[in-house]
Amino acid sequence: MEQIDAVLAGNRRVLARTISEVEDGGPDARALLGALYPHTGRAHVVGITGAPGTGKSTLVNALARAYRTAGQTVGVIAVDPTSPFTGGALLGDRVRMRDLAGDPGVFIRSMATRGSLGGLARATADVVLILDAAGFERVLVETVGAGQAEVDIASAAHTTIVVEAPDMGDVQAFKAGVLEIADLFAVNKADREGADRTVMALQAMQGAEPLEGTHKRSNVQTSFDPEKPGPQADGSWLVPIVRTVAPRGEGVEKLREWVELHAAYLHETGQRSQRETTQAKSAVMHILREQLLAALLARLPGGTGQLAAVVGAVARRELDPYAAASRLMSQ
Amino acid sequence: MEQIDAVLAGNRRVLARTISEVEDGGPDARALLGALYPHTGRAHVVGITGAPGTGKSTLVNALARAYRTAGQTVGVIAVDPTSPFTGGALLGDRVRMRDLAGDPGVFIRSMATRGSLGGLARATADVVLILDAAGFERVLVETVGAGQAEVDIASAAHTTIVVEAPDMGDVQAFKAGVLEIADLFAVNKADREGADRTVMALQAMQGAEPLEGTHKRSNVQTSFDPEKPGPQADGSWLVPIVRTVAPRGEGVEKLREWVELHAAYLHETGQRSQRETTQAKSAVMHILREQLLAALLARLPGGTGQLAAVVGAVARRELDPYAAASRLMSQ
Repeated sequence: MEQIDAVLAGNRRVLARTISEVEDGGPDARALLGALYPHTGRAHVVGITGAPGTGKSTLVNALARAYRTAGQTVGVIAVDPTSPFTGGALLGDRVRMRDLAGDPGVFIRSMATRGSLGGLARATADVVLILDAAGFERVLVETVGAGQAEVDIASAAHTTIVVEAPDMGDVQAFKAGVLEIADLFAVNKADREGADRTVMALQAMQGAEPLEGTHKRSNVQTSFDPEKPGPQADGSWLVPIVRTVAPRGEGVEKLREWVELHAAYLHETGQRSQRETTQAKSAVMHILREQLLAALLARLPGGTGQLAAVVGAVARRELDPYAAASRLMSQ
Repeated sequence: MEQIDAVLAGNRRVLARTISEVEDGGPDARALLGALYPHTGRAHVVGITGAPGTGKSTLVNALARAYRTAGQTVGVIAVDPTSPFTGGALLGDRVRMRDLAGDPGVFIRSMATRGSLGGLARATADVVLILDAAGFERVLVETVGAGQAEVDIASAAHTTIVVEAPDMGDVQAFKAGVLEIADLFAVNKADREGADRTVMALQAMQGAEPLEGTHKRSNVQTSFDPEKPGPQADGSWLVPIVRTVAPRGEGVEKLREWVELHAAYLHETGQRSQRETTQAKSAVMHILREQLLAALLARLPGGTGQLAAVVGAVARRELDPYAAASRLMSQ
């Protein structure tokens, strides 16, 4: 297919169009992803998340520049799960473009909420696949906001950076429950007062026993030695804390080096292929749910009228939703 | 079933246990919901959402008290989609309990994220059904945070109150995209400086043309007359803006009266039954997706080994996820 060849060759115009087609879920979306998929699996995917006000976007831009300086190509996906407004996303694009414009080794794309969050996480994963197939060696996925949406989207990343800033009140990661997903902490705006407190709060958090009811990552140690983060003798990973001042580029190369070290760690411990398997399973399950539902609805003897009748009976409380589902499935 | 009779009779201990069983998705969850479902559809469900710092929880408590004074029973569900920590939710429960403790006409329950957001929205809807069946006349669903999660959870409500507070920077609803879901605005902490600005910003927003790319609710007018909110001559609903000072109870009775007026408006215009149909369809679709997937996996000739083999091929890029799904479906 001509379009596929153009994407694989890195034709930017065709690449942008292909991403739009897949985002919109058009008739060719499935065939396009199927044809591109064998060419994926090479990019290292980095998720960057954190609360508004942490200077996350500036840090992502600085990290992209650091990768360019190091000679690697970079795709950037900025996801805003809190906003259905495309206006904001497009504005963000323009600000970014001014910074990294004209560099063929960088491709930037913004995405806003369309429909459900589950749909957004899936669409983000699809755009990652396309940039991966197009040959971008590193793909940075930036999510705005904090919460479960970020956790879901981060599941498509190999390395997740949680960004904090001083004087934001509580350390945000704690509140949002994103502590567990961090492979790296960046304390951005580290030239401000309070940076030491933020670093110490993160260190204390890593040393603390997990709260009741949280899941504990097997590769996070409970006895924390801040002197020796990164890969440990027992095979675990102690989350490094990197201080950055994004507008001046301070600490950004160090952050990039930690990402690369984490990438190597994932390869060596076999965790990268474990993550690939988890992501493959999640993708197959998602597609199965949607296609099984579509197939059932298509084969109902009474068509959409039959569905409407059953839904109406549920709305009138004559039938409970589980009984309704069983009835439709037995057709 | 003895348990069902106890729930319908309002036995609090059995009610709490039943909610836990349904939340946990235990073996009896489906039968319990099925048996309770015919007794649902009577409660008016009020969603209350807004950013952290708006004093939302205090307002919900004050609204619950206002309902008690008016002689109606109230269930309160506090949902925190940003936190997987049950600790926070339980603490919130205790703070609330101090306020409304010992009143048999009030039942309070907190829920934190379990698994996906989609799962949380579904679980919240199920708990609403249980409180409805148990005879609570009004169910208040409070969601903490702002964003798509709230939009999803609000879809289970008949009336949605978006809470703002002065001096929070931008009006939060705008950023979060929750403007479209508001049936009522509460400007809480209205004794603070800046309350007028917040009210005017909300009025301006309602008068403004929608941004490109947003969906426009058919029942929100574009020509705004702040003097006459509520039901309009043409059948639409102009979102009222109510000033409240929750700790002193100021404006709370007025807010309650607007909720009741909106409930009457939904009944009279037939929109309540439309919402019931939408919610019934969403519930049936969700259950169908999960049960169709479970049925497919159960009938695979190779069992879970076959699934693992296909997922492995996807992880190794030998098969794309869509082809994998097709292969499993054709078994």
